Amino acid sequence: MAKLPNMLSLWNLLVLSLALNVSLILRMVSESQERYIGSSCFKKQGDGHVFHEGSLTISSSLSSNFANSSRANHPQGNGRVINLDHGDPTVYETFWRQMGDKTTITIPGWQSMSYFSDASNICWFLEPELAKELVRLHNVVGNAVTDGRHIVVGTGSSQLFLAALYALSPPDAAEPISVVSAAPYYSSYPSMTDYQKSGLYKWAGDADSFEKEGPYIELVTSPNNPDGYVRRSVVNRSQGLLVHDLAYYWPQYTPISSPADHELTLFTVSKSTGHAGMRIGWALVKDQEVAKKMTKFIELNTIGVSKDSQLRAAKVLRAVSDSCVQERRFQGEESFFKFSYNIMSQRWKQLRATVERSGMFSLPRFSPAFCTFFTQILEPQPAFVWLKCEGEIEDCESFLRRHKILTRSGRHFGVSPKYVRISMLDTDENFMQFLDRLSAIQIQS
Amino acid sequence: MAKLPNMLSLWNLLVLSLALNVSLILRMVSESQERYIGSSCFKKQGDGHVFHEGSLTISSSLSSNFANSSRANHPQGNGRVINLDHGDPTVYETFWRQMGDKTTITIPGWQSMSYFSDASNICWFLEPELAKELVRLHNVVGNAVTDGRHIVVGTGSSQLFLAALYALSPPDAAEPISVVSAAPYYSSYPSMTDYQKSGLYKWAGDADSFEKEGPYIELVTSPNNPDGYVRRSVVNRSQGLLVHDLAYYWPQYTPISSPADHELTLFTVSKSTGHAGMRIGWALVKDQEVAKKMTKFIELNTIGVSKDSQLRAAKVLRAVSDSCVQERRFQGEESFFKFSYNIMSQRWKQLRATVERSGMFSLPRFSPAFCTFFTQILEPQPAFVWLKCEGEIEDCESFLRRHKILTRSGRHFGVSPKYVRISMLDTDENFMQFLDRLSAIQIQS
Repeated sequence: MAKLPNMLSLWNLLVLSLALNVSLILRMVSESQERYIGSSCFKKQGDGHVFHEGSLTISSSLSSNFANSSRANHPQGNGRVINLDHGDPTVYETFWRQMGDKTTITIPGWQSMSYFSDASNICWFLEPELAKELVRLHNVVGNAVTDGRHIVVGTGSSQLFLAALYALSPPDAAEPISVVSAAPYYSSYPSMTDYQKSGLYKWAGDADSFEKEGPYIELVTSPNNPDGYVRRSVVNRSQGLLVHDLAYYWPQYTPISSPADHELTLFTVSKSTGHAGMRIGWALVKDQEVAKKMTKFIELNTIGVSKDSQLRAAKVLRAVSDSCVQERRFQGEESFFKFSYNIMSQRWKQLRATVERSGMFSLPRFSPAFCTFFTQILEPQPAFVWLKCEGEIEDCESFLRRHKILTRSGRHFGVSPKYVRISMLDTDENFMQFLDRLSAIQIQS
Repeated sequence: MAKLPNMLSLWNLLVLSLALNVSLILRMVSESQERYIGSSCFKKQGDGHVFHEGSLTISSSLSSNFANSSRANHPQGNGRVINLDHGDPTVYETFWRQMGDKTTITIPGWQSMSYFSDASNICWFLEPELAKELVRLHNVVGNAVTDGRHIVVGTGSSQLFLAALYALSPPDAAEPISVVSAAPYYSSYPSMTDYQKSGLYKWAGDADSFEKEGPYIELVTSPNNPDGYVRRSVVNRSQGLLVHDLAYYWPQYTPISSPADHELTLFTVSKSTGHAGMRIGWALVKDQEVAKKMTKFIELNTIGVSKDSQLRAAKVLRAVSDSCVQERRFQGEESFFKFSYNIMSQRWKQLRATVERSGMFSLPRFSPAFCTFFTQILEPQPAFVWLKCEGEIEDCESFLRRHKILTRSGRHFGVSPKYVRISMLDTDENFMQFLDRLSAIQIQS
């Protein structure tokens, strides 16, 4: 080894030996892949209920069901419970395994020790490398305007949602500002808004029936969680402040119509690339004072955001942008969005076929639209199914639970229990099991 | 390459080539170290004020000073501002550089994608590897009882502090529970407690003057931030709930008297190993229901904690425990705590000598005590200096700022502005500059 540095540059050597690591890691991974998938299934089944966004305490029926699902939850077991209550985006794992070394990150023990990332930035804990890749990705995808925006990074977009409420609320108002969203709304909005009993903001329910005068915050989720429809604000009064949650405004879920150009927009890697474990989200903020207050919120809440995950996210997002550019330029490797679009497309076809064979359920219908990213007219294929039980079934969640499919009731989204939300982002194994169960139901009836 | 796997095991090869990476990385690092320290100084100078815990908005004097410090802040510049306002623990970087490959982590792009870490744990987002290393470290150091405790991981101990307030507050009380701490208290406690205007809890100031009847939460920081003294609860009434913040209860700062055995105890890697950028803290919690509510808080706040940083923290903590065990067994390499103890010891000696030569300042005096970790009688050497300006100087912070030393006024800690808090954890370069400035002051007067 001693003489090598004289013959080659250190960088060449480093790249060479990193490649060696990764090839070795991948070999070991592929050998243990079978076992890995099994255990990851086991985890997700149990966790769905622990992580039930809608309520603080786990209802007895849910927790007993959770216990059953944990016990009966081996991939082999046909009697096992399929947990599609939450949106754990493990469907994308295959793509990242294929990418191999391109997105492997190595962090030495002495790196990223300081609290601080960039003194010159309002968001002083934002890693410049991540900021650069976020701007590049939005330019490549064309789903958001970044010019004249401040980027605030958060521990997932949940933290940024709370930071936005804090930043937009009048600090000295006589009463908390109303927070509304059109039903069906994301099931976590009410509990996230109210769990601290804040004097600054208060959940005020369905935006469609919001009558109160004065200032308010409207949450606009587009495409919407749970039903997947494209949305605009519905209240439209002079004193309204808007937060746009665009977690699902990516080409695999919905046609990209134009770059989003709002006051305050939230995104997250959890749904864009599938790296939920990183807990990285970002906000694009027009008003400098709002960006400062959001930064202050995160400072008081967690004194910044994991640098390790910011650096890893930067590397993953760079790979996504590169894959898009290479696909366009060389018609070469499949881009991340082509890959994920195809999976979602196939799953939705299979699901629609299964549901149509049965007369018991119905699905939302979406109008096709031109996608500026894929430059063709495409149909939305949301990350969740918003399924309706037709006929006499009033409680769709309980009905499906009897068939060992865990879903989230429409009640949590402010609408009828005839609806349930079902994740489309789970493992292939769970998704196929889910389709089998649906088919079995119609055969029974 | 193709034939190698047949000759050697994959693992041997992996270790071999990882070692190669690190040696290369270290060479490149050492070549660019000079430049690195310069830029990191630049960052920290600016950020100190952005990250001024005490107040939401930056006062004009501070922000103008911030601008000056940023401009005038090249290591070469003797006129530059030394920012010791915050406790950025970069002093430990040297140790982690020496450790090299032992704490380098490599994370492939497909790893840790799920939200979930361990379904069987109340804290479902806690990485089992981290949980194991936390228990091991506390056993090796002897600073906390882990038997019969639930571990809740957080995005730094700040998030766990808020989670604790949420978990301990009566959910349906007529008025918010009082939160108190004996002055001088950590300058962030008041703003962290009140910034959300929560109806659950409210800052009620100095515990020594707390008279109100009924339930209350007392924050006990030991050794105390800012003054470094060992503390016990002071209110001691029947309806008191205690949160013990033991961020500095490590051998480099204070003699370890016995394993802490409280209801709810907070720790953080930021101050124990110096990895503030990871944003990893942990709570040891006796009551299962409290652990569940703290977990729920983090679920609603950030839906878990960065897996990347949890895995990296596990690796760093393992290296710390290993270094202690090896030192004891083989009298070999210096352990992390021996290394950091020696640095703190040297800095305190230099500081006391400088301060004693001047008649203008005074420092706290600590009684030596037996340290069960180092098995000898030692003196505390806190992470912060609690400096008092003697004589006619009423505003110590403004006085030192005129000499280009940024500190945090006693006002933020609930006491007189004759006191300031000064970080002892900054870079060698900044610490030596700080001592030079202090000496210069006494020469002037």
